Amino acid sequence: MRYGFKNAEEVKETSLKYNLHSWSVQGKLNPAVVEKAEGIYYYTADGKKMADMSSQLVNLNVGYGNKDIIDAIKEQAEKLAYISPAYAIDCRSKLAEMVVKAAPKNMGKVFFTLGGADANENAIKIAKLVTGRYKIFSRYRAYHGSSFGAGNLTGEPRRYTLEPGIPGFVKFTDPYLYHAPFPFESEEQATEYYLGQLRDQIIYENPDAVAAIVMESVTGSNGIIIPPKGYLQGVRKICDEFGIMMVCDEVMAGWGRTGEYFACENWGIEPDMITFAKGVTCGYAPLGGVIVSKKIAEFFDTHKLDCGLTYSAHPLGCAAGVACLNFYEKEHIMDKVKERGKQLGALLEDIKAKHKSVGDVRYIGLFSCVELTKDKATHEPLVPFGKDPEGIMGKIVGMLKAKGFNTYSHEACIFVCPPLIITEEELAENMAILDEVLTEVDKMV
Amino acid sequence: MRYGFKNAEEVKETSLKYNLHSWSVQGKLNPAVVEKAEGIYYYTADGKKMADMSSQLVNLNVGYGNKDIIDAIKEQAEKLAYISPAYAIDCRSKLAEMVVKAAPKNMGKVFFTLGGADANENAIKIAKLVTGRYKIFSRYRAYHGSSFGAGNLTGEPRRYTLEPGIPGFVKFTDPYLYHAPFPFESEEQATEYYLGQLRDQIIYENPDAVAAIVMESVTGSNGIIIPPKGYLQGVRKICDEFGIMMVCDEVMAGWGRTGEYFACENWGIEPDMITFAKGVTCGYAPLGGVIVSKKIAEFFDTHKLDCGLTYSAHPLGCAAGVACLNFYEKEHIMDKVKERGKQLGALLEDIKAKHKSVGDVRYIGLFSCVELTKDKATHEPLVPFGKDPEGIMGKIVGMLKAKGFNTYSHEACIFVCPPLIITEEELAENMAILDEVLTEVDKMV
Repeated sequence: MRYGFKNAEEVKETSLKYNLHSWSVQGKLNPAVVEKAEGIYYYTADGKKMADMSSQLVNLNVGYGNKDIIDAIKEQAEKLAYISPAYAIDCRSKLAEMVVKAAPKNMGKVFFTLGGADANENAIKIAKLVTGRYKIFSRYRAYHGSSFGAGNLTGEPRRYTLEPGIPGFVKFTDPYLYHAPFPFESEEQATEYYLGQLRDQIIYENPDAVAAIVMESVTGSNGIIIPPKGYLQGVRKICDEFGIMMVCDEVMAGWGRTGEYFACENWGIEPDMITFAKGVTCGYAPLGGVIVSKKIAEFFDTHKLDCGLTYSAHPLGCAAGVACLNFYEKEHIMDKVKERGKQLGALLEDIKAKHKSVGDVRYIGLFSCVELTKDKATHEPLVPFGKDPEGIMGKIVGMLKAKGFNTYSHEACIFVCPPLIITEEELAENMAILDEVLTEVDKMV
Repeated sequence: MRYGFKNAEEVKETSLKYNLHSWSVQGKLNPAVVEKAEGIYYYTADGKKMADMSSQLVNLNVGYGNKDIIDAIKEQAEKLAYISPAYAIDCRSKLAEMVVKAAPKNMGKVFFTLGGADANENAIKIAKLVTGRYKIFSRYRAYHGSSFGAGNLTGEPRRYTLEPGIPGFVKFTDPYLYHAPFPFESEEQATEYYLGQLRDQIIYENPDAVAAIVMESVTGSNGIIIPPKGYLQGVRKICDEFGIMMVCDEVMAGWGRTGEYFACENWGIEPDMITFAKGVTCGYAPLGGVIVSKKIAEFFDTHKLDCGLTYSAHPLGCAAGVACLNFYEKEHIMDKVKERGKQLGALLEDIKAKHKSVGDVRYIGLFSCVELTKDKATHEPLVPFGKDPEGIMGKIVGMLKAKGFNTYSHEACIFVCPPLIITEEELAENMAILDEVLTEVDKMV
């Protein structure tokens, strides 16, 4: 083994001794040791083959072992692994051009970061610089990262450790129709209700103080909440009415996950900024960024951009990004996702019809989840908000993993977000595992 | 050329069209195009050879083209470019072990991030989780990053765009002896004064509410401010007295820059946390982290670590880090820095004696700067705080670059922080350029 380790057990023990692991009580951990991976599968050291049905953290869109991206990283490491963001280098220029060209046509330039959190951090700063205002609106059922700025955008419990919060960060309610306060007659009616609530709240907070509304185009970790008809268009109108920047967080939903390069394109929206990360390099090298409109780009022709980080537009990330976007194009990934997404939608509807524990299924492209309920009539979630005292969701994820289906859960939702390269057969085979496990879950409800 | 570019001019034009560049008015930019680099030198597309006397952003400690690190990145990209932080993998375990073993002996575990800013973000979160308190002390002449948490730690003007600030972030005054409020008789007297001021301020702010004091062990970007004798030991005592976490930001000063793995070791300090980035991989792949004491590590055995990011402990960063730390050891870099640092110190003292524009020189290892003054008697800085209305400092940096000496400035300081692999001859040759340029600067004063 590499690095002088005697065996996988020693790799694990060393990790438990020296690594702090994310979002965990360290004393309860038993991390799997991974030694190889290919396509949609990774293999643990104890010989288990795992289908990665969450694409790790919904970032590994092209799956494992993509030769184009690996070769690009190797070539760039050899040529010039690092030079500060002040310089122009070929892969940095090229990726910027490709990202802007892939975005809605009002977009002008891109500021590269290392991931989604710092993309959102910088989007807020840019909105404040451009508008001269300081209030930032975002939603409760939202995750935008866990650094202070991104974490104050975040509405869900991962925000709490960052309190007392930053002055001027205001939360509003998501159009989460499955848990609506009363039954809507139509999506249009729901949209009207939620937009009305939002507009009122902006007026109460003083529209002249509001710099930005930040929202995931399609909510990711908090349950694949898909905006109802007309909602995003309505938010765009409210932003225009009050001179507020509309920022679409596409960290999870962007780069093909929904079948479009950016999820907001499903509704023909032109945001003022788009933040992205994950799928731009699929994790092969860290990269994120903020795409800004031509109008914002012009503003910074004559005003200082007060943003910066040592590894902005890192050469390895840029080289990986160019290779990754070329791969999407060459392999017609958007078309494939639309096609495979239809299959996934049909399988999810079957699952919903069949299982009493399944309250709702939500899907767009290969971005989907199954929401579990105690009661199909009342929609009561299988676990209460922000809590899982008996560890039920962890148990269900464990049952899936035991059968070779890797994913994770959040609240009462199980995610199904496989690599975008998944084949029809692989998807059918793994959805059958989910179906099996849900039969067990039905007995628990 | 790669990526279909016709020439370097097109790389630059594309960058100006699509990239937003850090800390700049975009309309005034004229970025150099870089195509190759080796050792302490990089080469611009117009054929200029530049000695990198700032190690880019004081991160490229091993210089360019380090074969050990490049090979480690290539091998890891091939083997497993990405797997989420939840898993144990060999390079992730190994680097954690090496980092903790390189740190002061009270240290226990490490949480890996992508850079210095998110290292500091997470250190604050950890201090809040461990202490249950919310106030964070940091200093005015300090830069800790530009995301909201790190940027609220930052005391200098790059903090202003992040205001209104996060409640509970309190600033205190640095022991900047060259600009002390009155002349001290000794370093010890200065230490007594600054510690007294700090202790009073903590008492006024309510010690029971203070989670952490965050400081650069040796202040970097704000002018290589070296703590006077007994200062860091005194801060440690104050922290112990009130149960406050002492966090040393070693993002710039760590990993050999001062001749020790961590700058705090120069004063025998055991902080509760150390944040790091830059020199751990020298920018070949992004990586940063927070090292926590054994005591803090134990706390998280039974408490949830509410920290996480998709690219925590990224495989490429970990592989690069292992190779980099092995290189430091194999090449006896700490000894070399101490030796070369003596040469640098002597050369800087000569420069100070010779030039009327040089008010002060500060140096430790290969971490140094020249502070320019209008008047050696009054110490008045060449440019006022936070401003340079006539662009004087930019002009001086431009004169250096024109002679092949790459560096940057901050306030009235010119940095001299070459790669740690610089030879005696290379250092002498480039310091002669600085000497020449300062003769020109003398005429401007």
